[in-house]
Amino acid sequence: MAYAGEFGLIRRIRGPATQRGVVLGIGDDAALLRPTRGMLLAACVDTLVEGTHFLPGTPWADLGWKALAVNLSDLAAMGAWPRWTTLALTLPRGEPRAFLGVVTGLRRLAARHGVALVGGDTTRGPLSLSVQALGEVPPRAALRRAGARPGDAVLVSGFPGDAAAGLALAQGRLHAARGSDARRLRGRLDRPQPRVALGVALRGLASACIDVSDGLAQDLGHMLRDSGVGAEIETQALPASPALRRVVPDVAQRLRLALAGGDDYELCFTVEPSRLARVADLSRRLRLPLTCIGSVVARRGLRVRDGAGRPVALSQAGFDHFA
Amino acid sequence: MAYAGEFGLIRRIRGPATQRGVVLGIGDDAALLRPTRGMLLAACVDTLVEGTHFLPGTPWADLGWKALAVNLSDLAAMGAWPRWTTLALTLPRGEPRAFLGVVTGLRRLAARHGVALVGGDTTRGPLSLSVQALGEVPPRAALRRAGARPGDAVLVSGFPGDAAAGLALAQGRLHAARGSDARRLRGRLDRPQPRVALGVALRGLASACIDVSDGLAQDLGHMLRDSGVGAEIETQALPASPALRRVVPDVAQRLRLALAGGDDYELCFTVEPSRLARVADLSRRLRLPLTCIGSVVARRGLRVRDGAGRPVALSQAGFDHFA
Repeated sequence: MAYAGEFGLIRRIRGPATQRGVVLGIGDDAALLRPTRGMLLAACVDTLVEGTHFLPGTPWADLGWKALAVNLSDLAAMGAWPRWTTLALTLPRGEPRAFLGVVTGLRRLAARHGVALVGGDTTRGPLSLSVQALGEVPPRAALRRAGARPGDAVLVSGFPGDAAAGLALAQGRLHAARGSDARRLRGRLDRPQPRVALGVALRGLASACIDVSDGLAQDLGHMLRDSGVGAEIETQALPASPALRRVVPDVAQRLRLALAGGDDYELCFTVEPSRLARVADLSRRLRLPLTCIGSVVARRGLRVRDGAGRPVALSQAGFDHFA
Repeated sequence: MAYAGEFGLIRRIRGPATQRGVVLGIGDDAALLRPTRGMLLAACVDTLVEGTHFLPGTPWADLGWKALAVNLSDLAAMGAWPRWTTLALTLPRGEPRAFLGVVTGLRRLAARHGVALVGGDTTRGPLSLSVQALGEVPPRAALRRAGARPGDAVLVSGFPGDAAAGLALAQGRLHAARGSDARRLRGRLDRPQPRVALGVALRGLASACIDVSDGLAQDLGHMLRDSGVGAEIETQALPASPALRRVVPDVAQRLRLALAGGDDYELCFTVEPSRLARVADLSRRLRLPLTCIGSVVARRGLRVRDGAGRPVALSQAGFDHFA
């Protein structure tokens, strides 16, 4: 079944004739790729289903972008450079326009990171996209969820909560006075920026790393559990974008979006305090906020405190996928 | 989203603690794999959607088996050894039983071929399985669809048409007097045997190769088109299993199943006539029928002739996915 039907179209619209590491691309029973000698391969897969992970009516190009972005985010969390990707696309009807839209959006993001679309499968059925991504990372350099140690600082990139606000705007549960705020937050939902350069730069710097897809509290919880430690987070320290501050002036509501909202695709990581200056340099170089939000402790579990040091009740339910 | 929820279960049921080439398996943001030095990576993906690729009510374990089988068949068609696989499973409800059934079936086939399940994603939505497989093949040894030359013999493994008869039996469009025939044909539909060892053995022997998933006529047509040649096939030469002969005594009907039926997952390949003795040896060694069904000609297109040399009208529609 592979590469039949619509994927034939790709051969006519394919981008660079030769892409690094691609011996044979789309059009045979499998793609042939040349791994870099001495590197480990990082492999992941993520599926987006209509109604569960995206709203009906989302532009095709945004779907393609996002389906790849969530995978590049997983590779970034391992400190891996992304290299190749495959797309399994299920469409209700044979729609060349939909197929081309999805592929165009996917390739737009792929081009930014030097990733080649090397294969795929199109099938008839309820709308969903399953993207698989392959990256490379030197042995022993990979970032893991396990590795955080008591005393380490806990950091997060970007502005968690923006994407959840974008979803609430799209669903009419929030309103923005400024159109530019609405577009910015909606863009964070529909076209997330995977933190590829950050992940690679954190090799040898972070003690543990995870990508934030299901809500900061839940994903940080996974990292703490795998590391066998706990953490204390200060609500005052959580970063909030100017757009989010304007659209959600209520602090408690913003806190819920930042901790339990989903679809951020930021990286959450831990570093030894002595390395925080290097992290600050990195933040400037990447022009990406990297905010210290708390610290790792030996006692297991995640505890959140407000500005006065009082514990904040925390639902670890995380991202509930529109439920 | 990767590896959340049910995939946590896998950590408790995972098979061999260490699998060759797996540095980090299920449970982090991505798997880490160690490619074999000097080998190319072969990558493919295939999706099975309920109602399109399998009948509602198909046992969970059979779905897992088949979703991997169709991918191993693609790798076999490239002459690649399968090594690693990921599973993206979309289920209507959170059903640990369904999840475990699918994983059990997938792993049963994986174990036969030394393949490791290294990652996955479970999502809520209409039932579908998207499996991605990675294999390895030495540079320049890979089999391609392009490469068939006029004068080459055209061969097919096994018994094309059995799986299509199995589908007709399952749908009540055919009836089998013997229960053993029904089970055998149904088994060919639900638990296809990817021709992994054959594919590897055909390195350096076959001039072109493709796997037969959408019907022999259609897939052979792809190979001929990519090779820039044509072929003449003799209906008398097409192999038919004893079970198929009993269940479908009508020759014309059997011909349709063999040429336009789908889901065979056999290999169709071409070899220079001087190498047919080696193919016969291989057939004995693998205990797998490898039947010469015709020959490659310079004139493009696929032509089928009956025992008297008369042309047979051929619908190249191929496998219509239950339509």
